Amino acid sequence: MCWLEATYLIRSTPEQIEARAQALAIEQSLEMPPEAVQQPWILTQVLAQVASITLTEKDTYKVVLRLALETTAKDPIGLFNGLFGNCSLQEDVWLQDVELPGDLLEAFPGPRFGIAGLRRLTGVYHRALTCTALKPQGLSPNELARLAYTFALGGIDIVKDDHNLTNQSYAPFAQRVPAIARAVAQANAETGRQTLYAPMLAGSPKKLAAQLEVARSEGIRVALVAPMLVGLPVFYELAQEAGVALLAHPAFAGNRMAPSLFLGKLFRLLGADASIFPNYGGRFAYSPQECQLLAQNLRNPWGPLQPALPVPAGGMTVERVDELLAFYGPDSMLLIGGNLLAAREELLERTRRFVERVAARSAQPSQEAP
Amino acid sequence: MCWLEATYLIRSTPEQIEARAQALAIEQSLEMPPEAVQQPWILTQVLAQVASITLTEKDTYKVVLRLALETTAKDPIGLFNGLFGNCSLQEDVWLQDVELPGDLLEAFPGPRFGIAGLRRLTGVYHRALTCTALKPQGLSPNELARLAYTFALGGIDIVKDDHNLTNQSYAPFAQRVPAIARAVAQANAETGRQTLYAPMLAGSPKKLAAQLEVARSEGIRVALVAPMLVGLPVFYELAQEAGVALLAHPAFAGNRMAPSLFLGKLFRLLGADASIFPNYGGRFAYSPQECQLLAQNLRNPWGPLQPALPVPAGGMTVERVDELLAFYGPDSMLLIGGNLLAAREELLERTRRFVERVAARSAQPSQEAP
Repeated sequence: MCWLEATYLIRSTPEQIEARAQALAIEQSLEMPPEAVQQPWILTQVLAQVASITLTEKDTYKVVLRLALETTAKDPIGLFNGLFGNCSLQEDVWLQDVELPGDLLEAFPGPRFGIAGLRRLTGVYHRALTCTALKPQGLSPNELARLAYTFALGGIDIVKDDHNLTNQSYAPFAQRVPAIARAVAQANAETGRQTLYAPMLAGSPKKLAAQLEVARSEGIRVALVAPMLVGLPVFYELAQEAGVALLAHPAFAGNRMAPSLFLGKLFRLLGADASIFPNYGGRFAYSPQECQLLAQNLRNPWGPLQPALPVPAGGMTVERVDELLAFYGPDSMLLIGGNLLAAREELLERTRRFVERVAARSAQPSQEAP
Repeated sequence: MCWLEATYLIRSTPEQIEARAQALAIEQSLEMPPEAVQQPWILTQVLAQVASITLTEKDTYKVVLRLALETTAKDPIGLFNGLFGNCSLQEDVWLQDVELPGDLLEAFPGPRFGIAGLRRLTGVYHRALTCTALKPQGLSPNELARLAYTFALGGIDIVKDDHNLTNQSYAPFAQRVPAIARAVAQANAETGRQTLYAPMLAGSPKKLAAQLEVARSEGIRVALVAPMLVGLPVFYELAQEAGVALLAHPAFAGNRMAPSLFLGKLFRLLGADASIFPNYGGRFAYSPQECQLLAQNLRNPWGPLQPALPVPAGGMTVERVDELLAFYGPDSMLLIGGNLLAAREELLERTRRFVERVAARSAQPSQEAP
């Protein structure tokens, strides 16, 4: 028998917590009264077990459940069903962390490119990377292409679509992506750099396949995908088959799973080569501690899985580069969008300042150096 | 110009709510400072607008935003991105309701079968329907088939897989589904009824397609799918192409969208023919009011979309049938699982009591009668 461990927070009382923890174990495995089960082996090998209960603060308990590995069928749907299927609907439960056995990790290929692959693709080995976003939606393909050209000229490593660019009439995927890809290639020819353009792949499976074909024919090497918008198993399948590196975007990923777990560990498990997340001190309420843990979950040694690149974002400014690099270290990518665009006519200058500052403050030998 | 209206709850203060509402409008459309936008038309036609702000209770405000229809690209990803993409990560925001313009409704086919189609498939026109679940996981295909046979003999209208049955080694899809389908067909031959078996479709897009092929070859007419586990655009594509009716399961669907909106309106919009949801008074904390609104959102006239069947579930008992039918009315399907299985050796008798009670208490002419 092999088990995985899931750590939940449960809001409860001293009188009720034991029964509540046991009810959660039943909910996430049998989903029926154990006394009605007629096969004894199911009670010992399928029913989840309460491993420990610890009071963490007033009325909140840390409860560790052991879930039988076989219940996950070693695939994304079985895993998320077991960890947080029905109990995602119960407002007294939060999922904080998981420990997955080697057998399960080996069934998930994880990042295909990872930090090392993204460094190869961008040709950046000894410093943190830079990223920005093409926006606002409403711009035409040519306007977006001009913007991308300026960013690439300024030395950004990855220029990505805003996640809001899907397939709107003002810039349909099939027109936007070739225009932007060519503008970035033009800038690369002038600078000698390897700036990458990451288009947003967004659609039902058939549309996604068509978009991927367009992207490949334009030489795209990295794409932006929101796993919760396309669907977690779709993202997992893409990671294995697309042949391009994947930047995961957190849109629609808000639920009662800890961001360090979901956007960190689990997006990496599903195949994210880089994971964009709301930085502390921006428009979102993540704490520095949660951001640090999230970055660690992306990069720490973890079975056979390659490390993935942390990409803090959201309301960041060029003025904060030093602080952010001190906090996240050189194996990270800083994503600044609005603050660059706010420079308007001085966009190129501010972009250069961002790039130079990152280069100056994070230059050092990296583990990924060739 | 055409707009859709989204109603949020925001936790804020009298001093901050106007700025907070405006920040939400920016987050869900431009995602950059409006003063940095150089195209005036984008500020009037793409930037979301704050339509109203109302204090609802202490520190909580109802904020209605108008989102430009074009930003949704009239597809599921654009729609969920606009409604609740980034702000799903902001813990002071809840999405309560949406009003969608006719142009958008027409782009979403909605239920392909709906209540009328499910009545045709089951041959049940003048009463509420009955549903149960095959569990626990761990049973072999033959054990599940025997259980399904008993349920069908007892007169259940739809016998569904437990949502935890995915592709585990003890009952892989390709072995489980033919065994159960044949057992139900056998029972139907004996009873003269049209009990349907609804297998759980669960996998990445390629596995899903293979499962659908197995299901079709066994004559399956209705399937169980968890939209949030397979992915919302996958569910939407399935609804249009699978050719089987879809029961939506709420696993992994917990977030800060109101259940009446998400499991009611939006699952229907995506194509659910029936939507399973936690009934009030069970293991989940939904209020009777929320359940009633959810059922109404599934059934109410809504543009060109067919009505979908409400399926209350979760900790329901045969003893509560009268109360539940009085509450939900005849255009509903009661799903009782564990409470039937708890009868053990008297499973057939309790199943018959459930079926008879539903028939006796809800028999009446229905709008869907032929």
